[in-house]
Amino acid sequence: MGDPRGIFLINGIFAVMLAAAMLIPAAVDLVAGNADYQVFLAASAASGFLGGTVVACTWRRGIRLSLRGAFVLTTSVWLVLPTLAALPFALAGLEMSYTDAFFEAMSGLTTTGSTVIIGLDNAPPGILIWRSILQWLGGVGIIVTAIAVLPLLQIGGMQLFRMESSESSDKAMPRAAQIAGATAVIYLVLTLVCAILLWGTGLGAFDAMAHAMTTVATGGFSTRDASVGGFANPGMEWIIIVFMVLGSLPFVLYLQAVRGRPMALWRDTQVRWFFLTVGGLLALVALLTDLFFQVEPVEGVRLMLFNVISVMTGTGYASADYGEWGRAATEVFYFAMFIGGCAGSTSCGIKIFRFRVMFENARVQIQELIRPNSVLVPRFNGRPIESHVTDAVMSYFFLFAMVFGMLAFLLTLTGLDMTTALSGAATAVANVGPGLGDIIGPSGNFQPLPDTAKWLLSAGMLLGRLELFTVLVLFTRRFWVS
Amino acid sequence: MGDPRGIFLINGIFAVMLAAAMLIPAAVDLVAGNADYQVFLAASAASGFLGGTVVACTWRRGIRLSLRGAFVLTTSVWLVLPTLAALPFALAGLEMSYTDAFFEAMSGLTTTGSTVIIGLDNAPPGILIWRSILQWLGGVGIIVTAIAVLPLLQIGGMQLFRMESSESSDKAMPRAAQIAGATAVIYLVLTLVCAILLWGTGLGAFDAMAHAMTTVATGGFSTRDASVGGFANPGMEWIIIVFMVLGSLPFVLYLQAVRGRPMALWRDTQVRWFFLTVGGLLALVALLTDLFFQVEPVEGVRLMLFNVISVMTGTGYASADYGEWGRAATEVFYFAMFIGGCAGSTSCGIKIFRFRVMFENARVQIQELIRPNSVLVPRFNGRPIESHVTDAVMSYFFLFAMVFGMLAFLLTLTGLDMTTALSGAATAVANVGPGLGDIIGPSGNFQPLPDTAKWLLSAGMLLGRLELFTVLVLFTRRFWVS
Repeated sequence: MGDPRGIFLINGIFAVMLAAAMLIPAAVDLVAGNADYQVFLAASAASGFLGGTVVACTWRRGIRLSLRGAFVLTTSVWLVLPTLAALPFALAGLEMSYTDAFFEAMSGLTTTGSTVIIGLDNAPPGILIWRSILQWLGGVGIIVTAIAVLPLLQIGGMQLFRMESSESSDKAMPRAAQIAGATAVIYLVLTLVCAILLWGTGLGAFDAMAHAMTTVATGGFSTRDASVGGFANPGMEWIIIVFMVLGSLPFVLYLQAVRGRPMALWRDTQVRWFFLTVGGLLALVALLTDLFFQVEPVEGVRLMLFNVISVMTGTGYASADYGEWGRAATEVFYFAMFIGGCAGSTSCGIKIFRFRVMFENARVQIQELIRPNSVLVPRFNGRPIESHVTDAVMSYFFLFAMVFGMLAFLLTLTGLDMTTALSGAATAVANVGPGLGDIIGPSGNFQPLPDTAKWLLSAGMLLGRLELFTVLVLFTRRFWVS
Repeated sequence: MGDPRGIFLINGIFAVMLAAAMLIPAAVDLVAGNADYQVFLAASAASGFLGGTVVACTWRRGIRLSLRGAFVLTTSVWLVLPTLAALPFALAGLEMSYTDAFFEAMSGLTTTGSTVIIGLDNAPPGILIWRSILQWLGGVGIIVTAIAVLPLLQIGGMQLFRMESSESSDKAMPRAAQIAGATAVIYLVLTLVCAILLWGTGLGAFDAMAHAMTTVATGGFSTRDASVGGFANPGMEWIIIVFMVLGSLPFVLYLQAVRGRPMALWRDTQVRWFFLTVGGLLALVALLTDLFFQVEPVEGVRLMLFNVISVMTGTGYASADYGEWGRAATEVFYFAMFIGGCAGSTSCGIKIFRFRVMFENARVQIQELIRPNSVLVPRFNGRPIESHVTDAVMSYFFLFAMVFGMLAFLLTLTGLDMTTALSGAATAVANVGPGLGDIIGPSGNFQPLPDTAKWLLSAGMLLGRLELFTVLVLFTRRFWVS
């Protein structure tokens, strides 16, 4: 394991940063004249004090983490931050239990977007902006993790996206950190552009900022109970469509585009397959709904595009109750949940590149069945896929199926019906947001679920967000035996 | 493709054999004084004439099939035989449509056991024994295919079970044929022993024989609407439990046992994991039902054991409506459907060895995450698993998930509810028999489904029975381009 002090130190630094972030909703509530500003100040003080103490006790220059330290660090950060981020929810005037508060914070930081808060329309602005901030931080956090940490950890085939495969990890780490920093700047710029455009459609500055943060993060928290649909603002929906897509493409490619290689975006296998998949799902839903008999064609296309992209990328906004678009269309949405966006973006799910690798492998398998003596090499982005990458992707898919099945089963044990259990498990592990059915569907809420189910779903979100393996290795005996 | 005459010849031979098999129900109906004997004679004459003509036109000694010819042969046999075997159903006094007749014949020959016939209790004996004969033939057919054909075709990791991996396929084929022949004898002996034991519990000779055939074939057709539960005969249920298990173990190991190596059976990884899985499922169901508050302990254990093994092995008998054992227990049955038995048996599903290979691969993956420099080799039955076997198994799992999802989706399009569509797709592709829910559950029937759904389910049974790849390769362009 090496020296565990580095793990405490980094967790402490993140806690202090979270404490600083809590000052924003405190200021918002103070300006709005809402008494909750005291809650945010108290939570900020508590997080800051705790984080500061840990930092003071473990401070050093030049942290060196072992590989196993990196696993513990990644998982612990995503456990410590929701624990602290839940404090304002638990202490504010909404009278939420700590279970609900933790669920909301985990749903925020993992950019899932499932909510247990009923009455967003009348909620104080501090709480609303805090939810958006959590998703925004979670979004940038996962991009940095996906660029700088996961490829080094070789999680679930993410080594496909290692920066410089020829360099040793000693050199790759600082270079990855540099790229992650530049990516974070792009993330910030995208958010601001989205906010300004939303503001231009007539949205208030507050709602524009709140939605910009949860759109680029493909998070899906809204400031209204009826989600984006509650604003009845077509311009807003079109802008969100564009920025949900931008949040789901590989951020590294934006960096290349800024550096003068904009074509890299269109040549990328992931990007192409992303758009192909969106197109395919759109065509399916269009064939299966009777939406066009109810609304104008342009509105119909907008509704379908918005909700298909929202579910597939794991954003989780709703602009209509697609649960009522007919049974077959609902099933398309159910399967779309699992897909996700591109690796190195804020979106989650199984991800496009894994489907691509598995299809490619199945294609090669079938061709080898026909011609056993021919040796075909599966390719991704023009390069051959090494067999250990294929194995890692396949293992990820297998574990995803197992974790999904196990979670659905455990949720049934808490008394949920089958539709709620199956779609709840899917929406948690794929970090989507809404499920299906009367309770947790697009027009529902996770509030009525039993506490055990909320903890299980929180665990599912954590597992899904950290690509399963990062968390699961901690449960093996060998990990702890030196 | 080589010379296609061999494919026609073998199909012709099978058609003649099927025609001969039709004489059995004809004799049974004649003895029972049922007019349907004419139907069986007519169907026999038609099949025999058709098959005989084809044989006469294509007769030769020493058929040599190309690899691609073997794919076409395997799939075509499993399409031609149900087409002919459906004739008696369509022409008999039951007034079934040809869709229903084909569904019943496909369900029989693939040893699935889903039925569209309502009123088995009053059905003539000829039809009842014909259903049993179809499953019995399908069972021995799939064992022979699994031993002699699939490993050579390298389907879905079945090359793990190639007889002599060092020999060339020229030598392996006759040797495999010899082993397949010996295995068929064991199959026949098991059936007779089962029939005699069932007869000993007080069952009539007819019912004893009919159930013995569908038990050893893990098929699941019964002679009563209430399935085995309708006989209220505990001894019968215990015997069927034992023989469903015997039908799900690798038949090659019985051969070794007969040849003086009985311990081979207990040392086999598949067999051990089969019993471990049964034990685990049994414990789960026991924990989740309130069955023990309703019935005596011994009866409770028998009911659970019978239905768990029936579903997991894909037999599909029911001795109770486990859909009423509580929601959580029902979900266990749902997941159990996918598991299946051992390779080289009559059972279907994803199969124990594939789960074992995937677990082993995931374990190795996780350990390599912890220690990137260590190279671990996944093992099966003490031998290292070659990477192309792992790839084949993983591709199988991926395609299984895709085919299952696609079939469930298409079934929804025909108007089925979600439970019926999802469990119907599972029960078809895994060749189990009953699904879940009010319509196709253990006390239900496939009769009310729309015709399109019946054809889709028939296709699912065929795909599942022939391990997906055997059929899917035929839909690739490369297969037909020389």
